[in-house]
Amino acid sequence: MALSAIKQMEELARSMPDVISLSQGIPSSPSDTVIRESVINAIRSDMVDKYSAVAGLPELRELISNKLKENGMIYRAEDEIIVTAGAMQALSATIFALTRPGDEIIVLTPTYSYYRRIAELASLKIKTLVLQEHNKWKIDFDTLQKMITKKTKILVMCNPNNPTGSIVSKKEMIRIGILAQKYGFIIISDDVYQSLYFGEGKLPSIAEDESLRKHIVRIVSLSKDYSLTGWRIGFLHADKSVVSKIFETHDLLINCAPVVSQYAGLVALENSERITQESLRKFSEHRMLMGNYLETLRDHLDFQWPDGAYYFFPKIKGVPGSEFGEGGEGHIRLCFGKSKEEIIEGMDRLKNYLVYNTYTQNNYETSHFGIRITEEKAIA
Amino acid sequence: MALSAIKQMEELARSMPDVISLSQGIPSSPSDTVIRESVINAIRSDMVDKYSAVAGLPELRELISNKLKENGMIYRAEDEIIVTAGAMQALSATIFALTRPGDEIIVLTPTYSYYRRIAELASLKIKTLVLQEHNKWKIDFDTLQKMITKKTKILVMCNPNNPTGSIVSKKEMIRIGILAQKYGFIIISDDVYQSLYFGEGKLPSIAEDESLRKHIVRIVSLSKDYSLTGWRIGFLHADKSVVSKIFETHDLLINCAPVVSQYAGLVALENSERITQESLRKFSEHRMLMGNYLETLRDHLDFQWPDGAYYFFPKIKGVPGSEFGEGGEGHIRLCFGKSKEEIIEGMDRLKNYLVYNTYTQNNYETSHFGIRITEEKAIA
Repeated sequence: MALSAIKQMEELARSMPDVISLSQGIPSSPSDTVIRESVINAIRSDMVDKYSAVAGLPELRELISNKLKENGMIYRAEDEIIVTAGAMQALSATIFALTRPGDEIIVLTPTYSYYRRIAELASLKIKTLVLQEHNKWKIDFDTLQKMITKKTKILVMCNPNNPTGSIVSKKEMIRIGILAQKYGFIIISDDVYQSLYFGEGKLPSIAEDESLRKHIVRIVSLSKDYSLTGWRIGFLHADKSVVSKIFETHDLLINCAPVVSQYAGLVALENSERITQESLRKFSEHRMLMGNYLETLRDHLDFQWPDGAYYFFPKIKGVPGSEFGEGGEGHIRLCFGKSKEEIIEGMDRLKNYLVYNTYTQNNYETSHFGIRITEEKAIA
Repeated sequence: MALSAIKQMEELARSMPDVISLSQGIPSSPSDTVIRESVINAIRSDMVDKYSAVAGLPELRELISNKLKENGMIYRAEDEIIVTAGAMQALSATIFALTRPGDEIIVLTPTYSYYRRIAELASLKIKTLVLQEHNKWKIDFDTLQKMITKKTKILVMCNPNNPTGSIVSKKEMIRIGILAQKYGFIIISDDVYQSLYFGEGKLPSIAEDESLRKHIVRIVSLSKDYSLTGWRIGFLHADKSVVSKIFETHDLLINCAPVVSQYAGLVALENSERITQESLRKFSEHRMLMGNYLETLRDHLDFQWPDGAYYFFPKIKGVPGSEFGEGGEGHIRLCFGKSKEEIIEGMDRLKNYLVYNTYTQNNYETSHFGIRITEEKAIA
């Protein structure tokens, strides 16, 4: 197996000067000073050198439990929450714990390629449900129902979705939930972008539906909102009956999340209101900036404004394959988590490419247009 | 699946006052001040917030490559080294990357139970080669040879071995290497305790044998020598042909090792000579302390002095099953990585138990002898 196209591109971009990469989902801003100084205190106070409990620091799980309660989700710190080394580690622990080789997983595409990749690593059979682009990326339930078999163990959804920026509506959640109950599968709700919602109020999570509690694993990352991607910190929560299955697998994959990062997570959540509001305000501005620029390129591409997450996913004529799976062909993903300067420079380069179209596959090493390379690779 | 007995015990010990736990392999000392202050600098200089390259910070891999060279191992920073979130994550990435369900793995027991546990998670068939206790835990090569089939993909060995403290001799390494070449399997050499060697000079690694390069994955942790267990930092190295297979799996399990911990690893290795010598000197003292105490209990138990790692593994009459697999029945593992005070108090409690033998399974909640509980659980 090779790295994902996004990762290959990012590793290539790293190795080249003057590349503006809008591909990988990394916020440009530094982490909050309050987080840093608290972590420094913890380091100096001998608090981060030893393993924590497998599920994470009790005080962090307690805080997570309280925060969940504020959002209508009742999960016990003792046995229904696991602190993880980021969302990816939560995802791999969950998939490995809940499946055996040959089991089936349903993935809604276009989406984050790692769902498929982890499922392949776990020797699962992957069934792909293509979202309806013409219908704001909604789910076709007739097709979904037909995909379900008694080997279906997991349906994974990303809400808001990466890369489409679309959200799963309340109505869709209810219908998915009914299917999960009827056929006995688990819904992994990857809510890593949940607080990046540009609509009114808060975006609900399917985990708020208490009647579905035994069928949901909710995954949360602290990477995006808090600019903590490098720290590898996130968590998952689920009913005790499900967490008890994931617990040992988590232990086998990592022992415990890095304790220094758990302290970062603790302070991040203590200051969550302030920090996430700042993030949302900033990313809303960036969304307008990038979206308005894209509007000027309507002759060259088609796109929808995202309801959540921090990506535009325009469709460009003549662009090949898709990293994000079926239904995403001809699209590229542009992240507006970057700084304004990077967005402007990147969009200028994209415009040059689209309007003057001088780029060819073979000259990228001598190209002055770094963005062209990364965009081309993103969709290779 | 449940947690390992060691972990269950450790989690229980955490929840009870006044328990001296000599079970889990955690050094008691805090991390080095030089490491801490450099990490603090990196945090304040915006260096740890973003993902690193998948394989880890280039400067860290460069340093690892140089350190390996000093020890007679030639591995390229670019494509033969992966920085991991601890040895466990290196181990799980390696096993998942190099096997498919139904493949076979050979584990030498008694040993660290996680080899078997991860192999089970990966749906492998596990073959257990029992080391010969009467012969200083040596390998029986006739039996080993008979275990190998064309489905054998991995042999995993821990050198020095946890929990026996025994080492794999040069002669044994050569014989294992010949088998790996003949039958085409990979040897995972878990060298996390390599610098804790109480014999003359340095303990060699099988990875120093250049002729075996395509058959070795060597795993190194920075947890034990540098008191960095909570930071989750280690690395693996192997021939490019093998690393290229592990690389994507590593990405899927963790993205990259926590960057803040990578900086800790960088400074740890920059100061490796001083810090590992201090560790070795301290643990040598602790080994003498615990070993001399155990000598006074020869009427009640039997044991061998360990050549490496930081465990004694005494055999006690009437003690049930073994967490460490076949060949380890009736043994308990005692870690001398703890402080002198903890060792003395723990050994006093063990002596009370062995000599006065009042403890029963049912009264542990009211027992004053914390050590009894943890020891009993360790072998449950």
